[in-house]
Amino acid sequence: MSKAVGIIGVGITKFGEFWEKNYRDLITEAGLKAMKDAGIEGKDVDELYVGSMTPGMFINQEHVAALVADYAGLTGIPATRVEAACASGGLALRQAYLNIRSGLSDIVVVGGVEKMTDVSVSTATVALAGAADEEWEVFHGATFPALYALMAQRHMIEYGTKEEHMAMVAVKNHKNGALNPNAQYQFEITIDKVMKSAPIAPPIKLLDCSPISDGAAVLVLASQEKIKELRKDNAVWILGSGQASDTLALHDRKSLCKTESAVKASRTAYSMAGVTPEDIDFAEVHDCFTIAEIMAIEALGFCNLGEGGKMTESGETELDGRKPVNTSGGLKSKGHPVGATGIAQAIEATLQLRGQADRRQVADAKIGLTHNVGGSGATCAVHVYGRELK
Amino acid sequence: MSKAVGIIGVGITKFGEFWEKNYRDLITEAGLKAMKDAGIEGKDVDELYVGSMTPGMFINQEHVAALVADYAGLTGIPATRVEAACASGGLALRQAYLNIRSGLSDIVVVGGVEKMTDVSVSTATVALAGAADEEWEVFHGATFPALYALMAQRHMIEYGTKEEHMAMVAVKNHKNGALNPNAQYQFEITIDKVMKSAPIAPPIKLLDCSPISDGAAVLVLASQEKIKELRKDNAVWILGSGQASDTLALHDRKSLCKTESAVKASRTAYSMAGVTPEDIDFAEVHDCFTIAEIMAIEALGFCNLGEGGKMTESGETELDGRKPVNTSGGLKSKGHPVGATGIAQAIEATLQLRGQADRRQVADAKIGLTHNVGGSGATCAVHVYGRELK
Repeated sequence: MSKAVGIIGVGITKFGEFWEKNYRDLITEAGLKAMKDAGIEGKDVDELYVGSMTPGMFINQEHVAALVADYAGLTGIPATRVEAACASGGLALRQAYLNIRSGLSDIVVVGGVEKMTDVSVSTATVALAGAADEEWEVFHGATFPALYALMAQRHMIEYGTKEEHMAMVAVKNHKNGALNPNAQYQFEITIDKVMKSAPIAPPIKLLDCSPISDGAAVLVLASQEKIKELRKDNAVWILGSGQASDTLALHDRKSLCKTESAVKASRTAYSMAGVTPEDIDFAEVHDCFTIAEIMAIEALGFCNLGEGGKMTESGETELDGRKPVNTSGGLKSKGHPVGATGIAQAIEATLQLRGQADRRQVADAKIGLTHNVGGSGATCAVHVYGRELK
Repeated sequence: MSKAVGIIGVGITKFGEFWEKNYRDLITEAGLKAMKDAGIEGKDVDELYVGSMTPGMFINQEHVAALVADYAGLTGIPATRVEAACASGGLALRQAYLNIRSGLSDIVVVGGVEKMTDVSVSTATVALAGAADEEWEVFHGATFPALYALMAQRHMIEYGTKEEHMAMVAVKNHKNGALNPNAQYQFEITIDKVMKSAPIAPPIKLLDCSPISDGAAVLVLASQEKIKELRKDNAVWILGSGQASDTLALHDRKSLCKTESAVKASRTAYSMAGVTPEDIDFAEVHDCFTIAEIMAIEALGFCNLGEGGKMTESGETELDGRKPVNTSGGLKSKGHPVGATGIAQAIEATLQLRGQADRRQVADAKIGLTHNVGGSGATCAVHVYGRELK
């Protein structure tokens, strides 16, 4: 526990479908915003991390951390890509955090980026399927909606969760996303509209799914000493960082409804931060499909296993509820450029804790949490953030 | 500088073309060997890192760290993939090292793996090209032999390096590889044979190129405290870890002959280890093409810029020379499963420092170095290892 680490700068692009911007444009735009926000220059940066899921499949480009350093004018510094499917951003954040904690660096920039719309939807589906078990799931025809549909069906059978509960997640997140100027879908939807949307993999319908998106998000992290030196009085502290894995294939798990990796990662993060689920004022969770948010709030301990649907129905996870979830609009409405998502979640947490979340501000937010999932749950990263260093 | 980190276990598969083994078989085989060598069990492992360049392109599988944890029976622990093209292994090693240094973990397993032969050679060429700049190099037809050929041509023009010098690198490395039971090509070749081999991208000929390979390599790292607790008296210490980046595209560099990233990474590693190039008893360098070894020994400071060809000709880099280079056979003869290479280099360093390198043992080796390059040099990781902790 050598050093405390804080977030001193954030930058994000709008999420959406950008045919006029490429991968390097997006990450550079977010990076420059983050550097400006932090009030630092390129020469101040010790290391760079980039979370990106599958640029090889999306833009024929691997080795992207060096690319980003190059285009950001940071050539020379160590630049490292981290990948864990849709949790790539969350894991990159954790490596950046560990780097500073190790005492090696004082300022580390960590970005997440994906450019998903330059390929056809079918190619994107194949690329995203790389997050599942190729030999045991994908080869046999499973896509991600299909895998989450299995979880949703089981959740409905075991706990009486209804399709309407899932629809309520989508409706809430669109309501929040309508207040987020960077969200891909800035409009509200209704339960009726979700229920009548096209079936994808029953019970999952089109409006239960997060979209395919382009976008990038960047954080500037700094050591406690450097934050003091720079006199950053709005630094947001990383109080806890947890990560865990689970079997890659869904069929190998004891339960389809309990995300063990999220349980483990969150308990690690809570313990490190010295908090309990009750202390969390708001959370950004990984709602790649609406059922995923229901399972997330259960795994994080915001409610008991099986009660996620009811908790959503009660309004507790609304912006003005007891435990606001996905104030940014979540993956569902804000968009889900997979590598960027984990970093975008941390940005929402930072804005909330700085009191800069504008129309979606959670009143008196002191402690926030992010929950970033890879695949169907084989990877989970949970971070706890605080306005004050404990 | 909280904690010293040592290597307490190594495991490697034979490198080659294995149609009967898949990605998960290879990494599991190497991992079990490493765990056995370290004398630890799965429950002792705190975290896992995997270096792999492009499993998405080679086997349609991303999210490979969770996959490896799953198949190795380590489900639950944090599992993180690191990618930087052919330097993926070296960067994964550095992240594992930082994790222990941060105080978070006591035992970390770090592996590297690639399964390259399940696709056609043309697909493999496209996959590997992901390490270069897609928009400025690959799209216009450049492949890796072509990029290294540009460097070789310039080196010949500026310093009088001859094709025979490059051939001597291949001959030396095959001579060493013939002594390595895990090498892909365990036979010697002659300068005449290299010179008469098929032209690929002049002056690079077939026998100047490292092969396409399957293989995996795994290390077990531990903190100094844990090493003391386990009474490991043959631990090999990581004395220095350096990493640097350069422009992704070759045309943006000041010089085609001087690998700035290797210069920077090695100076960082030397400084951390408190050594100079003179102190290095042997080195494993990234000879993806023979010219790369010539440029490597220059960048590492083993000779002056432009003198790498002459140093090779002098015999100094031979197994019994003043500064043995690539005692394992290097990428050229041992094989180059790209993600595994950086870890395999560290294994050779460990075996040499333990005195377990058998017929290729360097007499009285006390300090070794590994040099792992991504792409045409946009990433470089250099590690310095010692028999004793300084």
